[in-house]
Amino acid sequence: MGDWILKNEMKRVVLLSTGDELTSGKIADTNAQWLSDRFYTLGLEVVAVLTVGDFRERLVWAWEQALELGDLVVSTGGIGPTADDLTTETVSGLLGEDLRFDEPTADRMRRMFEGMRRPMPENNLKQAYFPESAVIVPNPLGTAPGYRVSTERSVGEKTVQRHLVVLPGVPREMKPMFDETVVPWVTAQQGDAAPPMARTFQTFGMSESALDEAVAEVIPEDAARVSFRASFPKIGITLLIRGEGAEARLEALSAKLHERLGGVIYAEGETLMEEAAGQALRERGATVALAESCSGGLIGSRLTDVPGSSSYFLADFVTYSNQAKQEVLGVPAATLEQFGAVSEETVRAMAEGARERAGSDIAIATSGIAGPGGGTEERPVGTVCFAMASAEGVVSRRHQLWGSRDWIKLLTSQIALDWIRRWAKNLDVVESGFRR
Amino acid sequence: MGDWILKNEMKRVVLLSTGDELTSGKIADTNAQWLSDRFYTLGLEVVAVLTVGDFRERLVWAWEQALELGDLVVSTGGIGPTADDLTTETVSGLLGEDLRFDEPTADRMRRMFEGMRRPMPENNLKQAYFPESAVIVPNPLGTAPGYRVSTERSVGEKTVQRHLVVLPGVPREMKPMFDETVVPWVTAQQGDAAPPMARTFQTFGMSESALDEAVAEVIPEDAARVSFRASFPKIGITLLIRGEGAEARLEALSAKLHERLGGVIYAEGETLMEEAAGQALRERGATVALAESCSGGLIGSRLTDVPGSSSYFLADFVTYSNQAKQEVLGVPAATLEQFGAVSEETVRAMAEGARERAGSDIAIATSGIAGPGGGTEERPVGTVCFAMASAEGVVSRRHQLWGSRDWIKLLTSQIALDWIRRWAKNLDVVESGFRR
Repeated sequence: MGDWILKNEMKRVVLLSTGDELTSGKIADTNAQWLSDRFYTLGLEVVAVLTVGDFRERLVWAWEQALELGDLVVSTGGIGPTADDLTTETVSGLLGEDLRFDEPTADRMRRMFEGMRRPMPENNLKQAYFPESAVIVPNPLGTAPGYRVSTERSVGEKTVQRHLVVLPGVPREMKPMFDETVVPWVTAQQGDAAPPMARTFQTFGMSESALDEAVAEVIPEDAARVSFRASFPKIGITLLIRGEGAEARLEALSAKLHERLGGVIYAEGETLMEEAAGQALRERGATVALAESCSGGLIGSRLTDVPGSSSYFLADFVTYSNQAKQEVLGVPAATLEQFGAVSEETVRAMAEGARERAGSDIAIATSGIAGPGGGTEERPVGTVCFAMASAEGVVSRRHQLWGSRDWIKLLTSQIALDWIRRWAKNLDVVESGFRR
Repeated sequence: MGDWILKNEMKRVVLLSTGDELTSGKIADTNAQWLSDRFYTLGLEVVAVLTVGDFRERLVWAWEQALELGDLVVSTGGIGPTADDLTTETVSGLLGEDLRFDEPTADRMRRMFEGMRRPMPENNLKQAYFPESAVIVPNPLGTAPGYRVSTERSVGEKTVQRHLVVLPGVPREMKPMFDETVVPWVTAQQGDAAPPMARTFQTFGMSESALDEAVAEVIPEDAARVSFRASFPKIGITLLIRGEGAEARLEALSAKLHERLGGVIYAEGETLMEEAAGQALRERGATVALAESCSGGLIGSRLTDVPGSSSYFLADFVTYSNQAKQEVLGVPAATLEQFGAVSEETVRAMAEGARERAGSDIAIATSGIAGPGGGTEERPVGTVCFAMASAEGVVSRRHQLWGSRDWIKLLTSQIALDWIRRWAKNLDVVESGFRR
């Protein structure tokens, strides 16, 4: 084994995922991806991910390997109340530490169960035992906390410092524990006087390579760590800045990035486009209606994924057949005949019909060919027309999209939601700059 | 390390996932889940999953560990044409074998590039080199094949048989390679004369524990390996049968299962409910319209995820506001006032209005409280009403669903699609037996 495992600094991370549900293929290990992404942003390197089921000997093996390879080992899973939750006894065994009972933790668990008006199963108290030297990591969303331990271990001929972090496997509980408690501690361990400052910008409408170029224009290479995360159809850009004055420098670079990318940045943080569109409508105090064809209801479904969307979303007319386009939305038969269902003329009429029938401030209409069948020379699969009707009139545009049926539907809904957001924010709508 | 790693039979599997995109969190390791699920069905146990980035020393470490722990090691990734694809040279180094150039593979690659009318980059030829003793695993969907090698290794004081399977990381290529070539070889290694026969049944409407009991009633414990895979909101049941006469025995058990579970089994294989509903409509030659409220367009979106759905899906009226319910669907103001938007009376009127306006054979309507806000004592979050209008009249039902906003929307759409399928198949609709 090479030198790469022996450097004594907190830089190399090993993730340890525990649970039969992982090794039997029942669920995917989304924790490992999420944590890897976080560590990437923090500038630490995940050198390995080890996954084992709930067996004592496998856990011991995995922990031994992990402590050899990583300065920091982050474990998820195996700290529940049942007999097959073996992580804490494995860790205390490896550390040579006894378990101690933590009364405040037990108290908090009892109070939480009282709050839920449910009796606390006795075996839950197992979750109030920790290795002697453990520092508790609070769990704001669950009954059982995690913990961290720092220790010295012999690796080869050297004695090295090792850090262990033990978290629950439930992603909903694990993530805030990591962000609220582990991240500040990790950055403190790295000797930074101030924690690193990170900011994520969500973008839509530019390709990753075009974004890369644009970012390089305004962010000098040594000014920030820049990472891109494409999660179709959006691309996130994260800036990470360390050291003195990080906050002010991040602020300045953010301003530059906004100036360069304009409306392509649709939000900061982990915001989805449907949330940004809804928020923009709410701020403008406007209502929306939809007329869909190839997207089949997806735009409406995404808009209504946002709690409280009933305050701005009135109706969605999914007119899949030509007859429905005529009878429900009043698209003239002559328009359909002359220009076809997938045409700017038709979606303009659909948008006007939807706006009128729903009595909304704006209406967005789409019609296209999602494939795999139905394409022609003139209108290949991926041809999608968009229109928006408002008090100012009707605008429209034809786009040539690409990919599978699912992708074309998703991209269609993303463009439509972006149009809503752009209208509500007084940005260019039709010339949104959306490019492949 | 315990005895669990030393038994000399092909039973213990280690998965090895390679790639910086995994350890940097760019993508989730869906291959590991998919393969774990396959091995679970095959009756082999995944004892560990090891994930490392594209570094020589880490790959060597991972392969050494994997060959110590597993009788069979299945690797994905790291066999592309670029310099950071290191799996093949790592494996040949561990085996002490030279690489050989495989002319037929190179030929096939050249021909595939010719077919795509693209020049083949010279570095692609790297993918035509294999360890001397490798047996090639064909790749029907990509240019580069995988391979397998069997070897003897010393583990502790024993010499044991080890099998290595090397596959690409692209799921679309890896999966058929595994199913078409690796599975038959694995089952042959296990000494089965005939390959095991497996069949999966997709169910909706019964809880996993209720299904478990029902299955136990008709499938004797030693007659088949039964596994459940819950992927909300559906639950799959897989029967696996080995040995002589497996096909006939599987057929007989399948018939018993269908008899016991009836309409709860909505399809065999990997079919989704929207596909089953669409197929049933197509077979009956009937058309459908929808009227949605809390599900916001999700039912329509799922129906239209199926290619060719325009032959049976006419329109979806997403009437989110009460005004839209009145004006678009003709729900009487008095009905809304007296019974509320979330009532069987209202959804019955919605279904009738949708059927009439779209001119469809049936129409399904839903209205409910998806939360997190909007619940009352009488109609808590999760209350969802369903109605179906057809030539035979209108039927309706109120359900109390549960979970987050997303889950309630998804479950609502699943029940609606199931009603469509049940109607088209002449099964009970309202009394579908759906239970928490």
